[in-house]
Amino acid sequence: MHAYRSHTCADLTAADTGTTVRLSGWVHRVRDHGGVLFIDLRDHYGVTQILCDGDSAAFDELEKVRSEWCIRIDGTVKARDPDLVNPKLPTGEIEVYVRDLEVLGAASELPLMVFGDQEYPEETRLRYRFLDLRREAMQSNMTLRSDVVASMRRRMWDQGFREYQTPVITASSPEGARDFLVPSRLHPGRFYALPQAPQQFKQLIMVSGFDRYFQIAPCFRDEDPRADRSPTDFYQLDMEMSFVTQQDVFDTIQPVLRGVFEEFADGATVDADWPQISYRDAALWYGTDKPDLRNPIRMQRVSEHFAGGGFAIFAKLLEQDGTEIRAIPAPGGGSRKFCDRMNKFAQGEGLPGMGYIFWREGADGMEAAGPLAKNIGPERTEAIRQQLGLGVGDAAFFLGGKPSDFETVAGKARVVIGDELGLTETDRFAFAWIVDFPIYERDAETGKVDFEHNPFSMPQGGMEALQGDPLDVLGYQYDLACNGYEILSGAIRNHIPEIMFRAFEIAGYDEAEVRRRFGGLVNAFQYGAPPHGGCAAGIDRIVMLLADTVNIREVIMFPMNQRAEDLMMSAPSEPTSDQLMELGLRVIPQE
Amino acid sequence: MHAYRSHTCADLTAADTGTTVRLSGWVHRVRDHGGVLFIDLRDHYGVTQILCDGDSAAFDELEKVRSEWCIRIDGTVKARDPDLVNPKLPTGEIEVYVRDLEVLGAASELPLMVFGDQEYPEETRLRYRFLDLRREAMQSNMTLRSDVVASMRRRMWDQGFREYQTPVITASSPEGARDFLVPSRLHPGRFYALPQAPQQFKQLIMVSGFDRYFQIAPCFRDEDPRADRSPTDFYQLDMEMSFVTQQDVFDTIQPVLRGVFEEFADGATVDADWPQISYRDAALWYGTDKPDLRNPIRMQRVSEHFAGGGFAIFAKLLEQDGTEIRAIPAPGGGSRKFCDRMNKFAQGEGLPGMGYIFWREGADGMEAAGPLAKNIGPERTEAIRQQLGLGVGDAAFFLGGKPSDFETVAGKARVVIGDELGLTETDRFAFAWIVDFPIYERDAETGKVDFEHNPFSMPQGGMEALQGDPLDVLGYQYDLACNGYEILSGAIRNHIPEIMFRAFEIAGYDEAEVRRRFGGLVNAFQYGAPPHGGCAAGIDRIVMLLADTVNIREVIMFPMNQRAEDLMMSAPSEPTSDQLMELGLRVIPQE
Repeated sequence: MHAYRSHTCADLTAADTGTTVRLSGWVHRVRDHGGVLFIDLRDHYGVTQILCDGDSAAFDELEKVRSEWCIRIDGTVKARDPDLVNPKLPTGEIEVYVRDLEVLGAASELPLMVFGDQEYPEETRLRYRFLDLRREAMQSNMTLRSDVVASMRRRMWDQGFREYQTPVITASSPEGARDFLVPSRLHPGRFYALPQAPQQFKQLIMVSGFDRYFQIAPCFRDEDPRADRSPTDFYQLDMEMSFVTQQDVFDTIQPVLRGVFEEFADGATVDADWPQISYRDAALWYGTDKPDLRNPIRMQRVSEHFAGGGFAIFAKLLEQDGTEIRAIPAPGGGSRKFCDRMNKFAQGEGLPGMGYIFWREGADGMEAAGPLAKNIGPERTEAIRQQLGLGVGDAAFFLGGKPSDFETVAGKARVVIGDELGLTETDRFAFAWIVDFPIYERDAETGKVDFEHNPFSMPQGGMEALQGDPLDVLGYQYDLACNGYEILSGAIRNHIPEIMFRAFEIAGYDEAEVRRRFGGLVNAFQYGAPPHGGCAAGIDRIVMLLADTVNIREVIMFPMNQRAEDLMMSAPSEPTSDQLMELGLRVIPQE
Repeated sequence: MHAYRSHTCADLTAADTGTTVRLSGWVHRVRDHGGVLFIDLRDHYGVTQILCDGDSAAFDELEKVRSEWCIRIDGTVKARDPDLVNPKLPTGEIEVYVRDLEVLGAASELPLMVFGDQEYPEETRLRYRFLDLRREAMQSNMTLRSDVVASMRRRMWDQGFREYQTPVITASSPEGARDFLVPSRLHPGRFYALPQAPQQFKQLIMVSGFDRYFQIAPCFRDEDPRADRSPTDFYQLDMEMSFVTQQDVFDTIQPVLRGVFEEFADGATVDADWPQISYRDAALWYGTDKPDLRNPIRMQRVSEHFAGGGFAIFAKLLEQDGTEIRAIPAPGGGSRKFCDRMNKFAQGEGLPGMGYIFWREGADGMEAAGPLAKNIGPERTEAIRQQLGLGVGDAAFFLGGKPSDFETVAGKARVVIGDELGLTETDRFAFAWIVDFPIYERDAETGKVDFEHNPFSMPQGGMEALQGDPLDVLGYQYDLACNGYEILSGAIRNHIPEIMFRAFEIAGYDEAEVRRRFGGLVNAFQYGAPPHGGCAAGIDRIVMLLADTVNIREVIMFPMNQRAEDLMMSAPSEPTSDQLMELGLRVIPQE
């Protein structure tokens, strides 16, 4: 017989009754039923109930074992009494009568229980991660992550992509976040950097003629702490293709991601239709460039109904340039109580409030209620109702001013309204391509034109477009939103040096500066670069969505805490003076 | 029609004759046949011949294109004249008559030609890696690497393994080489390290109950330059299993690697039988722990034939403790010329020389020649011949002394003899498991007992074995050799804290020191650790073997040069003073 096991703890069924078996695993739970010991023995695959009484030579030894001891037992498979069968357990038909026992690894007193659902502070969980990971939810999250990544790989291969590894020790990348630096010992005083993303390398791979690249790529950013992201690194499904248009990228990655979501949705619906929404429409309709389309509410412009009307605040507002009134329709929200609560929500977000109208059954049929309706009168109110397609029992909220001043709050209000009225579906994954991002934006403070997003995207219209108003230039640049999260970002790249130099010039960087910063890439583009584009999807976030958790540390095997410390391995730590000497560095004493 | 291509440059055949097509790719080679331009258009998938004459509106434009310009053409597929068909090219039946042309990316004058086999200095190749990578051999090496890694993943999944990612930014690992350090900004003066291997993490994954782990893992070591390794990082197929014996690990990984070699051997034989050879037998038989079994020569001990014999040097030597005489049989090496050349080889390696005997056809049948034979006389000479199984036309070489003094040279001589006599097969991959490594060795200078290999291996015999002579203790520790290279290393781990502390105590490390160095792992072992073991296979080396190259930079997409510089991206580089300030570091000026 094998030294440790003839079966895993998930294998045995009634068909094995009477056979002698060997199992290894952890003591999940011990129950002592007066002279009979019952133990749930657990391994990665499942749980098997083992038992022992005084007739067994192993009894005295088995009495000593405690939770989370790792043991090996030999025993005989017994069918359970019919009324003791546990249909929820694959091994629930049987139990194993223990005849021999070997302790493989004893356990000290536990700082964290594996059995049960007790909550522990995150610091405890991270310090004793090896125990935390034994818990059912973490086993399940980690295998989910592994299976999601494996599925991504299979699907990319099936689409004709190959995975190519790009350097982890390299030069600063131009993503704009803070680099992790790595001092060079062979070149004291000089530093490598860990890549913020393989952006330049994947473009170089296209220039090298590889046509279709992907990588499950670690990305490193020295970020300030935030709850929903790792302070050190994260993983992307990174891909790039040559000789493609934006639509080709969509047609390639959409089946991959849709397939992954369908495979792991665990009963939730996965939308088949992924609409393409322009950045500007997304802002208008949803108040965000990562809309949650499970929420059916779509905002609308209703300025015309207020211009010159009886509601003085809005009428006056509209006399200023660049102002608008927008409505958030709220089907089913037609009560003063609900409308007042939403108004308060807006005030809590720093706005003066949200005007509203709601429609109810009055003495003479449908009537519009709320102060706004009175001010603008029945005709305009009715026009609004018709535009928004609302009726009795519904409401609409109104925000006015410069869209950039209220769009974010409007977006939040849409989410809250959708949630509170039960309009937002659950158990569904809804996707939206956000396209036509502007390349430039004007800095509100300095008035200077700068890149809005990624400086490497191809402007729609090419060089010609860069001769006009920069703020009108749209890029072949896109995001993918899922349930309100950005899960992917990408672009068709600007592969023509002259167009690139012009694009940077508009943002105030001359050719020398561009060459200094992105020399490797710019140089390569002068030797026959193909048109190319691609995207990167956030793996941690996708797994979080599929695992239905909002804490990134639930889907990472050994995460840092929020202060970027590894409590289990004690990192970061003080270097030895020899190490510093070799690197030619001195630590500046902190006050 | 698609913006860039209706087909790749490998797609078109005679069946497409007459159709209008669109192709994109690079100008591989231009030939001007007096008014008719022939261009080999190349993409990742293949080459298609396109042509143009003055009748085409595209002619003037096409005349301007140069090597490595990236272009898009529209044209008509024409069948080639039967005598111009190129059977070596998948598209060799056709050519495309160009009617329209778009330059997608022009190229400056090339520092390195893609077409042809011209050699360039490595610095040029690395600086213009994006051109170097377009060459056929590099395209083939990179796709081979990608396909090998993909095949490894598929085979590990099929064996029930999941891939789990371990941290890249972490604490120092105990592998013994030099760490790359990463200064922490949030904790000035403290440093992370890049992992030399995921050794501790994969063991923690076992303690966490995951049973079967693997990872295509980047490993980082700050190594001094050497031709056949990367000065910064390398990749391993890293795996670990719980509840296993050494043989279980072999039975798991052997089919994976054998399958990979068979899949990519490109006609070479892949041995099915992988013998297990003890470390000590390997030293005796092959003079190395990474023997090349394609070479059939196996050395033997022949001390008895020289003890008290007429060859005084050996006879005297054997009077000292720990000395031996060993023979290298050389079938087919039976000429004085060859024997003298081998003797010179040994002298070149720092030995006084190698004695030899060779057998030839004499006047009275077979006779043994060489000074050694004369000294020891015919009886002993014949006994040696019979032990070694040699005959007319064969030779044997002899080395004497303490094995540790001559084993390495003996191993080299065996290789040279095998090569020169044509005994070593080519086009074959031969494997050997090397087992039973000693855990300890005595330092020749200090006389101190220290770990020979990996301090984390389980000693054979457990705690009991650690009570006797440390130098007799063997470990459950193993390597895999292929064609003379070590391609894998592994062990069953020491998972029991008491045995681990005792093992370290023998090597002079007390418990406090072990806890200080390996606290994360040792702590975890106190909470129910399962028996576990695994191995790590070197991916770069396996791909080198399969690609039949000896330079690691031929199988890495963007390698560092031997001074650990990336010439294309300019790394390492000087940090800004802001960056240093944020990290709390000062660079010590170098003299």
